[in-house]
Amino acid sequence: MFTLSQIVEKLGGQWRGDDVAIRAVAPAAKAQSHEITFLANPKYKQDVHDSAAGAIIVAEKNADLFPQRNLIVVADPYLYFAQVARLFYPIVAAKAGVHPTAVIEPSATVPASCEIGAHVYIGANAVLGERCRILANTVVEHDCVLGDETVLHPNVTIYHGCKLGKRVEIHSGSVIGADGFGLAFTGKDWFKIPQTGAVHLGDDVEVGANTTIDRGAMSDTVVGKGTKIDNLIQLAHNCQVGEHTVIAAMTGISGSTKIGSYCVIGGGVGTVGHIEIADKTHIGGGTNITHSVNESGQHIASIFPMLPYKEWARNAVHIKNLNEMHKRIKELEKQIAELNSEK
Amino acid sequence: MFTLSQIVEKLGGQWRGDDVAIRAVAPAAKAQSHEITFLANPKYKQDVHDSAAGAIIVAEKNADLFPQRNLIVVADPYLYFAQVARLFYPIVAAKAGVHPTAVIEPSATVPASCEIGAHVYIGANAVLGERCRILANTVVEHDCVLGDETVLHPNVTIYHGCKLGKRVEIHSGSVIGADGFGLAFTGKDWFKIPQTGAVHLGDDVEVGANTTIDRGAMSDTVVGKGTKIDNLIQLAHNCQVGEHTVIAAMTGISGSTKIGSYCVIGGGVGTVGHIEIADKTHIGGGTNITHSVNESGQHIASIFPMLPYKEWARNAVHIKNLNEMHKRIKELEKQIAELNSEK
Amino acid sequence: MFTLSQIVEKLGGQWRGDDVAIRAVAPAAKAQSHEITFLANPKYKQDVHDSAAGAIIVAEKNADLFPQRNLIVVADPYLYFAQVARLFYPIVAAKAGVHPTAVIEPSATVPASCEIGAHVYIGANAVLGERCRILANTVVEHDCVLGDETVLHPNVTIYHGCKLGKRVEIHSGSVIGADGFGLAFTGKDWFKIPQTGAVHLGDDVEVGANTTIDRGAMSDTVVGKGTKIDNLIQLAHNCQVGEHTVIAAMTGISGSTKIGSYCVIGGGVGTVGHIEIADKTHIGGGTNITHSVNESGQHIASIFPMLPYKEWARNAVHIKNLNEMHKRIKELEKQIAELNSEK
Repeated sequence: MFTLSQIVEKLGGQWRGDDVAIRAVAPAAKAQSHEITFLANPKYKQDVHDSAAGAIIVAEKNADLFPQRNLIVVADPYLYFAQVARLFYPIVAAKAGVHPTAVIEPSATVPASCEIGAHVYIGANAVLGERCRILANTVVEHDCVLGDETVLHPNVTIYHGCKLGKRVEIHSGSVIGADGFGLAFTGKDWFKIPQTGAVHLGDDVEVGANTTIDRGAMSDTVVGKGTKIDNLIQLAHNCQVGEHTVIAAMTGISGSTKIGSYCVIGGGVGTVGHIEIADKTHIGGGTNITHSVNESGQHIASIFPMLPYKEWARNAVHIKNLNEMHKRIKELEKQIAELNSEK
Repeated sequence: MFTLSQIVEKLGGQWRGDDVAIRAVAPAAKAQSHEITFLANPKYKQDVHDSAAGAIIVAEKNADLFPQRNLIVVADPYLYFAQVARLFYPIVAAKAGVHPTAVIEPSATVPASCEIGAHVYIGANAVLGERCRILANTVVEHDCVLGDETVLHPNVTIYHGCKLGKRVEIHSGSVIGADGFGLAFTGKDWFKIPQTGAVHLGDDVEVGANTTIDRGAMSDTVVGKGTKIDNLIQLAHNCQVGEHTVIAAMTGISGSTKIGSYCVIGGGVGTVGHIEIADKTHIGGGTNITHSVNESGQHIASIFPMLPYKEWARNAVHIKNLNEMHKRIKELEKQIAELNSEK
Repeated sequence: MFTLSQIVEKLGGQWRGDDVAIRAVAPAAKAQSHEITFLANPKYKQDVHDSAAGAIIVAEKNADLFPQRNLIVVADPYLYFAQVARLFYPIVAAKAGVHPTAVIEPSATVPASCEIGAHVYIGANAVLGERCRILANTVVEHDCVLGDETVLHPNVTIYHGCKLGKRVEIHSGSVIGADGFGLAFTGKDWFKIPQTGAVHLGDDVEVGANTTIDRGAMSDTVVGKGTKIDNLIQLAHNCQVGEHTVIAAMTGISGSTKIGSYCVIGGGVGTVGHIEIADKTHIGGGTNITHSVNESGQHIASIFPMLPYKEWARNAVHIKNLNEMHKRIKELEKQIAELNSEK
């Protein structure tokens, strides 16, 4: 429980109205008198107006909309709401200790401040930082290095030799450092190219559930600090992702692709390999990226537009006629020009 | 082993011919004399006619096609075939008992009727219903609630505080309740929005392998009873899925999207967030859903049509000329009209 | 460490220059004097020329480009490089023994030559070949059969009754043999069709991380020998994949689809079910395969071309007008023909 003045003391901003006590954050439509809500998107003005919330986080320009309410006035209500939520739900601290069913190879280094869950396996020569949380049934293979306060949720797998920075968080089911998909054709079958690199994740990287980040073929696959990667994503071998980029679920980045910093990549995106995406590129969900994006700050978004089935069937059939349609238009233009010249 | 008359006694329908003994179900092309097959799709009439099956499940309208054969005549042969298959392969019952390597926190409630496999971890205050099957190496975090006869296959992860109804079945590798992908930009990095909701799956929900259903940000992610979700699917935070909807593999539903009941969603579909899909909507595989579908019962299907590479290359290049082509057609129409008016 | 002459003795080819000692393979830009690099793609000629590598693997036709360098001249530099890399990183051999935390049901057959990791579970009647490596936290359910030297990485799940050939390798998180997505609608809910087949993977099949291969409904899902399957792929029930086919990440193959041998299928591909793809078909990444490809050796590639957002929005809106545009062109052609005939 925090009063508005206590919240402002911790996080900045200005409180107005009564210094009420707040126990949780909540969306406008559900908030009750002991909860605080926020107005970020103007389309929710009415919802916030009607809300039973005990207080509202709001930008100065919208503060006048709620003259009778208890407010915290801030520059960025969405960010501030997240920070208030974090006050009520602080990051879980490691409960120091090793579960008796965990297996830690004798040559591994596991500080006493770490929390090691049931059925965890930590391989030879692995080195963990302070206060790591390795939760139930997770596997860290030999020769991995994990920075301080890194969290591996249950059923994660980190292959041998991978390096994770500080405060990295990996959600359940994700696999870091499996072999890249490198094959050479012999004329009758496929010879596997040994994947001799590893994966390096920078500080504060977060990886969602069931994502795969493959180890590099000869050098490492690298993700820069602060980059956030959602669920069910594929980062192929030798990808280089910059810092503070976000990648939404089900996106696949092919091998040796280089993605800049501060990019925002939507869900279900696919890329070819061996290309570069400039810093601050925004890529819309579902787009197939077929060549490099060299200029920073562009917005790319290319999907087949959604249509009712019959409308789709009637129109999509002409996709294969586009070249012919284009030629017919040119021919018509030529004939019209002749007719006009003969007038 | 069941005779035709025994099957009819259990499941309804009418048997004709000899009351033969049946030991299994099989597809027409492979069925032998101790097996039963079925005719649902008319294009398999010849296969069924030629089948060595000992009996055929058939609709009344098609019964005349097989005058010499042993038949079970029913309203819906496909459904009936499934019900007969279930007779031969009943749902596996829990083998009551806790494997000695399983770890169950003392505050958890695990009825004696449950089957708890090797290396399972069940967290503090978790509550399981009767006759649950929690198979090897699965993790159920603290404060989860599981209904009677729920089955978690090996290597499943259920994050803390999630609620699963009765007879829920989750296949291996799936992750229920990982953090949603909620981030607020500070101007230099991304601040994580605490994901303080959970996941609630209704009775009889089935979830395939390696699917991820994220916990909600402030309220829960909810899947209604009887809904069936295939493999490698992403349900983002705060999605609401209705009852008896089916979603095929590799589909991604973005955050706060609301999907109705009795929808049929193909594989590889993607949606933007914060939209609504009406009841009974059919969405074709591979479609990108970019806005709400408000009217119930529509069929949406929009993909780029499949073409040989050269044909694709020749035509797809004109996609970026469509607006110009449209203008050129308008100009031609104007000039033709002028020429015609001058006649 | 191998000298050039030792490498040639093992792998063939011809060495030129000094018989230097090599300790590793490396890409041209990073290679040092104790490393060997290669020239396969001509666009890297300059990189290779500038490389500090101690030796270069090169085709005869390019050998003259590097007259002062130590060379190994071979027919296929890319394949040869892979083979040299394998000399330095040989396939890891099984460390015979069962970890004390592993659980093996008494009726299972596990040869003494196998390596069974921590927290592994092997079910009743499972039969393993010689020198298998079953790594930490992996589950092999009852009645599975694994060929010699098969490797299951950590946190893999093999459902009951599946058969894996020799030298099969399955990466972490993958699930082999979960139930296919088969449902019959009763009019009010979905009745699950028992999935009574299994999965059969041929010799030398490799499966990446977090891939799912579902068991068949009445007969098996089958993958032919030498086929290589990347990460996060869905092979639905009753698929039949031929031999030596490669499938890149995030591709989904719908039920009962039959894929030929020596196909190359890009990433993010989707197919409808019940179709056939002929041998040696190449499918470009992101393509939706909507019908069979009957002729062998075709190249299919159909995606919406990538565009900047504004250009996409301006043009994609006309997709739904294509049929109308086509009609308008026909009408214009008719009117022009009339005008020309009246001249």
